[in-house]
Amino acid sequence: MFEAAELGRKVTKEEYEKKLAGLRSSLLTAQFAAREARIPLIVIVSGVEGAGKGEMVHRLNGWFDPRGVETHAFWDTSDEESERPAYWRFWRSMPARGRIGIFFGSWYTAPIIRRVFGKSSNSELDSALERIVFLEKMLADDGIVIVKLWMHLSKKKQRERLQQMAKDPLTRWRVTKADRKNCKLYSKFSRVSERAIRRTDAAHAPWHVVEATDRRYRELEAGRLILEALQQALENKAKKEKPAPVKTSTVAPRADHAISILDRVDLKSKLTEAAYDKEMDQLQSDLTRLTWAAREKKVATVALFEGWDAAGKGGAIRRVVEAIDPRLISVVPIAAPTDEERAHHYLWRFWRHLPRDGRMVIFDRTWYGRVLVERVEGFATEAEWRRAYLEINDFEEQLVEHGGVLAKFWLHISKAEQLRRFEERQRTPTKVYKITEEDWRNRKRWPLYEDAINEMVARTSTEFAPWTLVAGNDKLSARVQILRELVARLERVL
Amino acid sequence: MFEAAELGRKVTKEEYEKKLAGLRSSLLTAQFAAREARIPLIVIVSGVEGAGKGEMVHRLNGWFDPRGVETHAFWDTSDEESERPAYWRFWRSMPARGRIGIFFGSWYTAPIIRRVFGKSSNSELDSALERIVFLEKMLADDGIVIVKLWMHLSKKKQRERLQQMAKDPLTRWRVTKADRKNCKLYSKFSRVSERAIRRTDAAHAPWHVVEATDRRYRELEAGRLILEALQQALENKAKKEKPAPVKTSTVAPRADHAISILDRVDLKSKLTEAAYDKEMDQLQSDLTRLTWAAREKKVATVALFEGWDAAGKGGAIRRVVEAIDPRLISVVPIAAPTDEERAHHYLWRFWRHLPRDGRMVIFDRTWYGRVLVERVEGFATEAEWRRAYLEINDFEEQLVEHGGVLAKFWLHISKAEQLRRFEERQRTPTKVYKITEEDWRNRKRWPLYEDAINEMVARTSTEFAPWTLVAGNDKLSARVQILRELVARLERVL
Repeated sequence: MFEAAELGRKVTKEEYEKKLAGLRSSLLTAQFAAREARIPLIVIVSGVEGAGKGEMVHRLNGWFDPRGVETHAFWDTSDEESERPAYWRFWRSMPARGRIGIFFGSWYTAPIIRRVFGKSSNSELDSALERIVFLEKMLADDGIVIVKLWMHLSKKKQRERLQQMAKDPLTRWRVTKADRKNCKLYSKFSRVSERAIRRTDAAHAPWHVVEATDRRYRELEAGRLILEALQQALENKAKKEKPAPVKTSTVAPRADHAISILDRVDLKSKLTEAAYDKEMDQLQSDLTRLTWAAREKKVATVALFEGWDAAGKGGAIRRVVEAIDPRLISVVPIAAPTDEERAHHYLWRFWRHLPRDGRMVIFDRTWYGRVLVERVEGFATEAEWRRAYLEINDFEEQLVEHGGVLAKFWLHISKAEQLRRFEERQRTPTKVYKITEEDWRNRKRWPLYEDAINEMVARTSTEFAPWTLVAGNDKLSARVQILRELVARLERVL
Repeated sequence: MFEAAELGRKVTKEEYEKKLAGLRSSLLTAQFAAREARIPLIVIVSGVEGAGKGEMVHRLNGWFDPRGVETHAFWDTSDEESERPAYWRFWRSMPARGRIGIFFGSWYTAPIIRRVFGKSSNSELDSALERIVFLEKMLADDGIVIVKLWMHLSKKKQRERLQQMAKDPLTRWRVTKADRKNCKLYSKFSRVSERAIRRTDAAHAPWHVVEATDRRYRELEAGRLILEALQQALENKAKKEKPAPVKTSTVAPRADHAISILDRVDLKSKLTEAAYDKEMDQLQSDLTRLTWAAREKKVATVALFEGWDAAGKGGAIRRVVEAIDPRLISVVPIAAPTDEERAHHYLWRFWRHLPRDGRMVIFDRTWYGRVLVERVEGFATEAEWRRAYLEINDFEEQLVEHGGVLAKFWLHISKAEQLRRFEERQRTPTKVYKITEEDWRNRKRWPLYEDAINEMVARTSTEFAPWTLVAGNDKLSARVQILRELVARLERVL
């Protein structure tokens, strides 16, 4: 694969300068048009050591209007990064719509390096690459243009380059020990990289292997590739070319014990106040103990709450929170997104709030808004909410794989019970704020929501992240069900 | 001072429940009114161990509409936090306008604990407290309501409480070793806290010592205090009561070598291309070396650029960036704020981007916008931009005290040179985007800007963060001046 990038292509200084002027002004034009069209661009600069990746990053920064560009070098991880799923650091660096992110290092770096140094097997590498394909697809579906540059040097050229850099006092500082070590592993590195490139060379995010021996050639080539990608995206957008409709699997929901449908939730379960007090005391004390143990063992917990309006989410969340030291928990209520949030993929705002190891975060409403309210109200297109099931499952899998607990609660009540609560809220001064026009409007769409909920549960109640459907007509019983499940989930991993 | 909180005040269950209902509905009403009026609230929950701080935090969370509340526990620091000035972690947790932040632990915690454990002297404590007073004043000036609760227990009560907690399997987990140790230091802790409270009990952010022995009493009391503060703020805002105008010092600018005025900048300095090439090569190589050394020694660098339109900031920044490994530097261009940024104090968006130890951040336009464009265009009131000088000096002092380098460049050109460049930009395809209507408008206000710049330099060229006024009519010479200064500054600390 790399042979095509060992042909000795060169550009003379005159040719370079002539072409560069035109290229730069076209790139600027494209940048401004992309800003206008709110198209974000990610340029991944990767390749072998000594191929001039750093220089390339500088060059790109110089070509664009700096007000729209941010450069992110993914290098050593901070503890805030390593204590969260691996992609957290990439999500926090995603360019907003209309902006350009230049990535020096990327989601490719760790999987390749791990494989080269024998810390992972080929099949582990492959599943890491699959996850990458999924991520890039998801970003591309959301309109992000991804240009992946692999800068290549032959083994001989690499050795020459690094020797030269190490000698020159001007560049010696740039050659680290790790660089030299990687260089020794050239063949291995080359094999692993080729596998990575091959398996992730998708239509929505193709790889470009750039012959990097000649600085002028590689720069013009990189500029040209970026320009073409941007122009193509602008053209597509202008044509209002919609992405092909995404097909979700037509397989029937898995016959999993955790999967149920709303009708099967037994809404008659009830608890006396005395039984509730006793059990709640015990459960809260268990939760106190278990959250401290989770802190000790560095287990992160995400508990998410969805449910009908007035199903009792707030009260249930309060019972959970009360039991936990405030230093270990935070609650993230999801309301209308800010403009920074709107300028990113819809999952971005949730990545933002993931807990560090040993802590718990409760989401009061969640990413499921995409397949519930956004679906029913038409805020998301059918293609968008349909592909969200896969996106959500992938996201949740990452949370669980990082070694955390993910508990998902759907609070279910009957339509009659909802009406009773709405009316009670309107009569109670400390509750009247909880009831709005929107609630009444949602209520009218009950059957549409019912469909959406059933499909949501069917498609996202996975082995690693099953839904817990809570019978909510009796508030006391509902709270006990929730704490019981949380305690059980924590006990299982601790 | 604490005697008044050892009177044995109690509330019966009946009284508590009766009062609580009214209190809660008033608090909710006030919360919604504050959201409407975009008034942010910070509640600091502090006090002795065992006084029920954690419980209080839970209670407050339960009383308010959770969609507008966030709780921040300032506990162990992450490396991202400890590698930045100490207040960074507080700035990242500031509630946006209209929201409520409940702080469990705060900027008081570290100074008090350090003093109690003998890691700082009284005078070090005092300067930490002075900084706090300044911070709270600055936030209050910006419209934030700050309620500071100090929950007090007598020595005897504290011992009883902790023993009880340690025995009870339900609460035992909450008593940490550190708690027990702090308890032994009761008298010392009490003395230090009293000093802290006394020195920071300002009108804009008064302390409230709450007798915490009785749970019901302390909760009602805390609720009442918060309610009053919110209602007062709402009333003030309704009356459109402007804060008293801030007086800035009328002392003449210090006769410091670093202070100059624009007229004294010698715009005639010029460099031949050959001399430039030679010196630039050397300086860039020095910069490469020094930034790696800074990484090694964990020194953070902030370089900021202000200047007339078309003064050459972009080109100068590029020459700096080129010399530095992209993993060590990032450039933050300051354009119009996002809505999240607008919902905070104007310094918030700059705190956001401070470098970690060992890295460099370049700000392309900065917090000085407040005393330049915002002053001249009237985006900030006179009171606002006048107090900004002190706020900026304090901010910069914190950067430098944390152990970093702060280099501030003003790029100066003559009015005639600006015109020449504007016209050149309009003729050059790759530069035409840089010139807008706004530039021409700004140009017409040259004398107003000149005044603002002179005052800015006079008031903010401090010993720890002097301005470097760069003669910019000759671009080559300007760039050399800048790199020379940066190299010198880095060399001094490394």
